[in-house]
Amino acid sequence: MRLSKYFVPTLRDLPAEACAVSHKLMLKSGMIQQISSGIYAWLPLGLRVLQKIEDIIRREHDSIGALEMLAPTLQPADIWIESGRYDDYGKEMLRFDDRGGRELIYGPTAEEVFTYVFRSHVHSYKDLPKILYNIQWKFRDEVRPRFGVMRGREFLMKDAYSFDLTKDAAVRSYEMFFQAYIKAFTSMGLSVIPVRANTGPIGGDLSHEFQILAETGESEIYYDSALDEKLGCTSIEDYEGIYAMAGERHDGSSCPIEKERLIVSRGIEVGHIFYFGTKYSGPLNAYVTSKCGERVPVEMGSYGIGVSRLVGAIIEAFHDDKGIIWPESVAPFLAVIIPVNEECVKMGDEVYHSLLLSSRDILYDDRKKSAGIKFADADLMGMPYQIIIGPEKNARRCVEVKNRKTGESIEVKVEQLDQILFSSTSR
Amino acid sequence: MRLSKYFVPTLRDLPAEACAVSHKLMLKSGMIQQISSGIYAWLPLGLRVLQKIEDIIRREHDSIGALEMLAPTLQPADIWIESGRYDDYGKEMLRFDDRGGRELIYGPTAEEVFTYVFRSHVHSYKDLPKILYNIQWKFRDEVRPRFGVMRGREFLMKDAYSFDLTKDAAVRSYEMFFQAYIKAFTSMGLSVIPVRANTGPIGGDLSHEFQILAETGESEIYYDSALDEKLGCTSIEDYEGIYAMAGERHDGSSCPIEKERLIVSRGIEVGHIFYFGTKYSGPLNAYVTSKCGERVPVEMGSYGIGVSRLVGAIIEAFHDDKGIIWPESVAPFLAVIIPVNEECVKMGDEVYHSLLLSSRDILYDDRKKSAGIKFADADLMGMPYQIIIGPEKNARRCVEVKNRKTGESIEVKVEQLDQILFSSTSR
Ligand SMILES: Nc1ncnc2c1ncn2[C@@H]1O[C@H](COP(=O)(O)OP(=O)(O)O)[C@@H](O)[C@H]1O
Ligand SMILES: Nc1ncnc2c1ncn2[C@@H]1O[C@H](COP(=O)(O)OP(=O)(O)O)[C@@H](O)[C@H]1O
Ligand SMILES: [Mg+2]
Ligand SMILES: [Mg+2]
Repeated sequence: MRLSKYFVPTLRDLPAEACAVSHKLMLKSGMIQQISSGIYAWLPLGLRVLQKIEDIIRREHDSIGALEMLAPTLQPADIWIESGRYDDYGKEMLRFDDRGGRELIYGPTAEEVFTYVFRSHVHSYKDLPKILYNIQWKFRDEVRPRFGVMRGREFLMKDAYSFDLTKDAAVRSYEMFFQAYIKAFTSMGLSVIPVRANTGPIGGDLSHEFQILAETGESEIYYDSALDEKLGCTSIEDYEGIYAMAGERHDGSSCPIEKERLIVSRGIEVGHIFYFGTKYSGPLNAYVTSKCGERVPVEMGSYGIGVSRLVGAIIEAFHDDKGIIWPESVAPFLAVIIPVNEECVKMGDEVYHSLLLSSRDILYDDRKKSAGIKFADADLMGMPYQIIIGPEKNARRCVEVKNRKTGESIEVKVEQLDQILFSSTSR
Repeated sequence: MRLSKYFVPTLRDLPAEACAVSHKLMLKSGMIQQISSGIYAWLPLGLRVLQKIEDIIRREHDSIGALEMLAPTLQPADIWIESGRYDDYGKEMLRFDDRGGRELIYGPTAEEVFTYVFRSHVHSYKDLPKILYNIQWKFRDEVRPRFGVMRGREFLMKDAYSFDLTKDAAVRSYEMFFQAYIKAFTSMGLSVIPVRANTGPIGGDLSHEFQILAETGESEIYYDSALDEKLGCTSIEDYEGIYAMAGERHDGSSCPIEKERLIVSRGIEVGHIFYFGTKYSGPLNAYVTSKCGERVPVEMGSYGIGVSRLVGAIIEAFHDDKGIIWPESVAPFLAVIIPVNEECVKMGDEVYHSLLLSSRDILYDDRKKSAGIKFADADLMGMPYQIIIGPEKNARRCVEVKNRKTGESIEVKVEQLDQILFSSTSR
């Protein structure tokens, strides 16, 4: 993509309410624009990151046999009354009448809709287990939207729902999601801490939150320092016996961990999984026939990931005072090509066209701007590699490849650039 | 994908209101489920088609330099008041107050938001032209939602907006879209008729609708039979001088075409493009500095495609009495593998695994059902190829490859299947 033709409206003057570093950097680098409180437009650079995160999530879901579908954003109020949650959800749920006077809500989550879809079609244990998911916009009229996309009102969520015959099978689905979540977050470059959580308005009795450490995190978490050695382990068993609790669930007086080993930290909740048995299948009448012909309510779990929140969370985890430092897997572009002056533009064009043959993930800063501005913008936008074309190296048909994270540079022959860039990655 | 583990809830009993053949077939083949009047959940098979259509549209937009972003579904009422459309839109626009008493609307279209984004960042002719687009859910509280996803209330639209300095440049953008639209629809296998249209609530003075002929079409169109020879031509000039009008714009008394040559037909409007100059940039204050330093309102156009409607329209165009006949480019899967009995399952597994290495677009009917049921479902779901594994051919390591459209079969060696299936296509 040629930057001169792209739409990356970098900002200088930030609104006062932008206090989280990720919020600032997303505005500064032209990734998002606020349209109303807690409601954002995703500009091209931001959308690319969102789509890459979606793809990682899809891959991990497909690999555990979860099936993608898409629920509508609006739902009839009826099914919420049926499930008994219509009153629980309070003012966070946006409610309104359509022109015919029927009440609709903008889905803050979708347990009801998925249970409704399931009960309409599945009636026998033979069709179980079934895992359905979707990636869809949700709305919650938060009292205090803040930190940009991290606590928005309209936000993108991946929500999945598992349907099993027995509690044992449901717990196995839960454990499978636990693994898939750790794999997905790890693929995004994140170190994620799974903590036991209360089940809140979703209800039920088994729940984990997935937390990313960050000062701006809104969650308080408590965990045994022994957990550090487990980070990146995927199986739920790996974490067994190690104390790790969401704030609401931690109780100082009954905590089994000695003070010295108890870490208290702030985290960003990027995912949340629940096993809640028959809490919805009962009232919503989602029953299946068991092997012995009995009708039993299906055992369910639900599994959420804050897709749009993750964009902010990843920036919280990966930035320096110059800007964002994208992990390769979610970077909007793998590299940005920077000719430092007019003289180097010819080589810039050549390098751009040749790399385009291998990947469309290349940004080309072909703007008529000073090298200083280009370097600053490249550091701000945070692509993993900067391909710098300067006059001396140019003469030898060489370029400088600078790693945004380490700051290290190597000199590379133009002819070898393709191999250097794309052999170390999966692209 | 193994059909036994997939979620394709084929229906036998159809609701009475399903009168359009595409609506019936989408329900029958488990592609969608109604959640409320005009509001649908897209089940896995339906979603795959929707995503393939999106990808074709993305490709054509990228190729004309349009930049993808994503506007939110909800918009502040303010900008609609600013543009002067707040009152025009009437009851079709869903309006409601948030918890703070501020009025929001569910976007029925997004001229205002895109103009707002543009005006916030672009101030000079040097940054023009700019074309921005998004693929996002819209809501219109239609008086009479019908024909399934073809006239829904919540529906997926691709909407694009062009920003140019001069009228000439804007008309060139318009012509570029005209071409891109014909290419996109042609890639979906469709023959599309571009007709001159009124500009309606969008306003402005140049407009074309893209119509697919179908009995259930809600639009009436009038055109010169000479147009038939032009179908598939992409340039706006190719259609010049040939009479082709949307119903509202046709006037029997002034129509220049002789009766014998005038075709009156029903069509499904799958796309609609508008050039409207400064209709929004004026009131919304989207001005840029021209070359000579003057501030001028930017020249705009907008360009919509009914992404979810297209799924229905394609089925209207491609079906027979047994079911859907997907064009390859939008088929949920390229082929379905059908072992006719238990004995053939081993070969079914082998074929499935070997084809999976080339493409994930393969469905495997591994259900323990009769061959009759499998054939009927395969015809209903409409994948372009059926790979039938019967006992005799099996013994010779051969399979039957049946073309859903022509009904023709060829015998293929298992070892050559991969080449036969994937060489004729781009996959
Ligand atoms: N207001 C919000 N803005 C952005 N993301 C959110 C918001 N609320 C929730 N999420 C994301 O969606 C995920 C699933 O939501 P859920 O656990 O149901 O929410 P909560 O923890 O608020 O009950 C959360 O883990 C979080 O990542
Ligand atoms: N209710 C609907 N359901 C599905 N698709 C729709 C609906 N209304 C419009 N569309 C699609 O969106 C495209 C752009 O909409 P637009 O032309 O603005 O609508 P209209 O013609 O109703 O004014 C249309 O060409 C059509 O394909
Ligand atoms: Mg939560
Ligand atoms: Mg129209």
